[in-house]
Amino acid sequence: MSILTSEDLPLYERIANLIEKQVADGTLRSGDKVLSIREMSRQQRVSISTIIQAYWLLESKGILAASPQSGFYVRTPYRELPPEPECKQQITNSTTVEVSDLVSGITSATLDPSIVSFGAADLCPSLFPNSRLNKIISCILRDNPTHSSSYDFPPGLENLRKAIAKRSSAFGCDLGPNDIVTTNGCTEAMNLALRTVASKGDVIAIESPTYYGILQVIEGLGMKALEIPTDFKNGMELGSLSVALKKHRVKACLLSSNFQNPLGFLMPEDKKKEIVKFITKHNLPLIEDDVYGDLGFSNNRPPAIKSYDKKNLVLLCASFSKTLSPGFRVGWIAPGSRFIRQIQRLKFTNSVATPSLQQMAIAEFLETGNYDRHLRVLRRSLYNQIQLVTKTILNHFPEGTRVSRPVGGFVLWVEFHNKFDSIKLYRRALEEKIAVSPGIIFSASKQFKNCVRINCGMQWDERVERALIKLGYLALEQKQAKN
Amino acid sequence: MSILTSEDLPLYERIANLIEKQVADGTLRSGDKVLSIREMSRQQRVSISTIIQAYWLLESKGILAASPQSGFYVRTPYRELPPEPECKQQITNSTTVEVSDLVSGITSATLDPSIVSFGAADLCPSLFPNSRLNKIISCILRDNPTHSSSYDFPPGLENLRKAIAKRSSAFGCDLGPNDIVTTNGCTEAMNLALRTVASKGDVIAIESPTYYGILQVIEGLGMKALEIPTDFKNGMELGSLSVALKKHRVKACLLSSNFQNPLGFLMPEDKKKEIVKFITKHNLPLIEDDVYGDLGFSNNRPPAIKSYDKKNLVLLCASFSKTLSPGFRVGWIAPGSRFIRQIQRLKFTNSVATPSLQQMAIAEFLETGNYDRHLRVLRRSLYNQIQLVTKTILNHFPEGTRVSRPVGGFVLWVEFHNKFDSIKLYRRALEEKIAVSPGIIFSASKQFKNCVRINCGMQWDERVERALIKLGYLALEQKQAKN
Repeated sequence: MSILTSEDLPLYERIANLIEKQVADGTLRSGDKVLSIREMSRQQRVSISTIIQAYWLLESKGILAASPQSGFYVRTPYRELPPEPECKQQITNSTTVEVSDLVSGITSATLDPSIVSFGAADLCPSLFPNSRLNKIISCILRDNPTHSSSYDFPPGLENLRKAIAKRSSAFGCDLGPNDIVTTNGCTEAMNLALRTVASKGDVIAIESPTYYGILQVIEGLGMKALEIPTDFKNGMELGSLSVALKKHRVKACLLSSNFQNPLGFLMPEDKKKEIVKFITKHNLPLIEDDVYGDLGFSNNRPPAIKSYDKKNLVLLCASFSKTLSPGFRVGWIAPGSRFIRQIQRLKFTNSVATPSLQQMAIAEFLETGNYDRHLRVLRRSLYNQIQLVTKTILNHFPEGTRVSRPVGGFVLWVEFHNKFDSIKLYRRALEEKIAVSPGIIFSASKQFKNCVRINCGMQWDERVERALIKLGYLALEQKQAKN
Repeated sequence: MSILTSEDLPLYERIANLIEKQVADGTLRSGDKVLSIREMSRQQRVSISTIIQAYWLLESKGILAASPQSGFYVRTPYRELPPEPECKQQITNSTTVEVSDLVSGITSATLDPSIVSFGAADLCPSLFPNSRLNKIISCILRDNPTHSSSYDFPPGLENLRKAIAKRSSAFGCDLGPNDIVTTNGCTEAMNLALRTVASKGDVIAIESPTYYGILQVIEGLGMKALEIPTDFKNGMELGSLSVALKKHRVKACLLSSNFQNPLGFLMPEDKKKEIVKFITKHNLPLIEDDVYGDLGFSNNRPPAIKSYDKKNLVLLCASFSKTLSPGFRVGWIAPGSRFIRQIQRLKFTNSVATPSLQQMAIAEFLETGNYDRHLRVLRRSLYNQIQLVTKTILNHFPEGTRVSRPVGGFVLWVEFHNKFDSIKLYRRALEEKIAVSPGIIFSASKQFKNCVRINCGMQWDERVERALIKLGYLALEQKQAKN
């Protein structure tokens, strides 16, 4: 078996095609393990990174699934899963965003213990390494009792910046401590980035759908969000972006390439390179939201778009809120040499400093090598949760419901029939003490009325399962009322 | 002895005049204790609050000094102290602010242990209740190991808001927990306030001189700072503000009435009432920075301007950074019912949440009654530091140097002769590993070139004393070079 034929395709695609063919003809069947990356690399006599790319491609096509620590296997084929969303979008005029009211309803639902919340993208507390973090904090209290007696002025705690810099090769960047500014979470990072590259009234190109928090940050700064159609496998469509650039004075682009919220896709590496080529040509700053980048179901950490950026146009934003602790409020930005001085200044004027104790704790956690071990466990849990929720939707939601197949993160994008009203479902569900995020809050122009996002980060138990089944029932109810 | 004569003055001023006369004629001498507030109230048959006002007036005039826990005594008379600054100011046109470069030099100096820093307004770690706070944190780690596993979405931790609300009667406000939003320090609070009441390009009336951080926040938001002459006993001049309102479209006013940074004055209560009358008449939002409000040298906590506000025009901002811990990053805002929804939204889009653990720790610290005890000790220390630094300046700075007489906080405002160049002093001092804040950074229009602010919050020791003497010598050197 050799795939080194003369086809006019990159090597990794040829390997992927071969495996896809084996699945199609039944040589490989649902649940079968495929060769490990190392074995396949040896067998095909190609580099490990080529095999990784091939497997990622197959993952993003939903053909392979990565089971953390035990390699890749063939996934339940598409025809047995609910179909994927169609994500019909249009380029819309830039609009001032108004989603805040709906969102505050959803965030307050997460604080109400009587409500089963599929709304906000929250993880259950048991998924975080609380005990290890608490031990680290105890040691800091003992060894450094004046830990918080001064301001960690920007760029922030040196040890943390060193630890992040050390990890940065994992996502293809070769950052130094001085390339990084610590922030109060990824949201502050994106705020500073937006304020650095744009002003009130300016147009920001964003994905459609996109995380509602991004729409709110843009709204809060008085900027305008311009939605660019976003392919649910490949991310933002550059053709559409190109058209938009001609029509609007777009000041920056903000997107997420790794396990995008809400669609969960992993942008192929070629597309990442293409994006860098595009923004370089147009001298367009790109704010990259990589907050889910560590949460792919495969153990291979995909590169950030920034890793291909030679012109210092990419401002990379991330945090530890989805992996270690949301309440710590520690994120960071690597804005590149063009913008870093301005980012440091704005950080000082925005909140002076990031909390000291949590910066120290995370630095220690990263330094002592626990982070990767923790991620392996977390990714497996998230993968399982996604599977459980998908299965329940398959069995209990109206026929024709489409569901995304995320390859990382912990949210699902669910699409009902064209005329479905997810705001109605949201309201009806709240009456039943179930929270869900209606599609329109992921869009500045109120698209995706027939979609909802389902958070899969909760503790899965009977109560949650019952609530999800109920949600399916409520969706069915609406469908039948329409008929 | 009765002061109830028919003079046309408020009662407290008449009492103050009487005591002032006794000091002038030698009946009371430097170091003498005056009657306690209670005794004086009984003797004069007037209310305790009238006596408090009288003593505050005398404190602000530098005639009495409060020694925490042991009452008031007669201060070293003026003629033995350096004269107070003249603070010559002018109404300037609104300008886009550009002080950031100098400021980042000063903040980085605080992180360099080889430099003796009189620059940033920092306290030495031993002045904070670290051990008690660490104990509280240890208990939280033990009793609530998932303390930080979710976001404390705005308005922030309920227990902390309850504790702040409970304390609010101390500064004359009757706040409920729902009137408060917690923030990442006072700076984030002021940011949110400014963004709520104004936009890019709008004019904000500020004190002259004012804290440079405020200038930077305004600069960072693309707004314009309009300096209003500020009396170094009474605060912002309303006459000048009135003139400014006619000439400029002022969107809001930002000031500090209690122990203002850098002048250290305590605005008289009547002036506070007058300000509220003024902003009500002009429907002008007022952002009140009360971050030093708990740090008066008298144990009586002065009221906030907000306490007189009936029209919900005052957005009160404060934090625990100057009293408990700068590195905790916990502040708060009480924006009034008119603005609170907008503030909550902006807090969410600015940084999602405030760190959980520190909010819990401060709530516990406030609830268990340690805060007032801690403040008593802290105020005494700050008072002593101010005295030590003032005395050293008196003995070692050029003749004619003027020094402020703060009645709270921990900074001194030092004014040299008219032609003095404090930037030159700043640069020369840095060569000698001494940091100081030059006057122009406290002004958007680069006034106060002949002034410096001296931080008195450091640990006073020989090294610090030598550095301060050296600073005086460098000032003298410049004076002599001029002659």
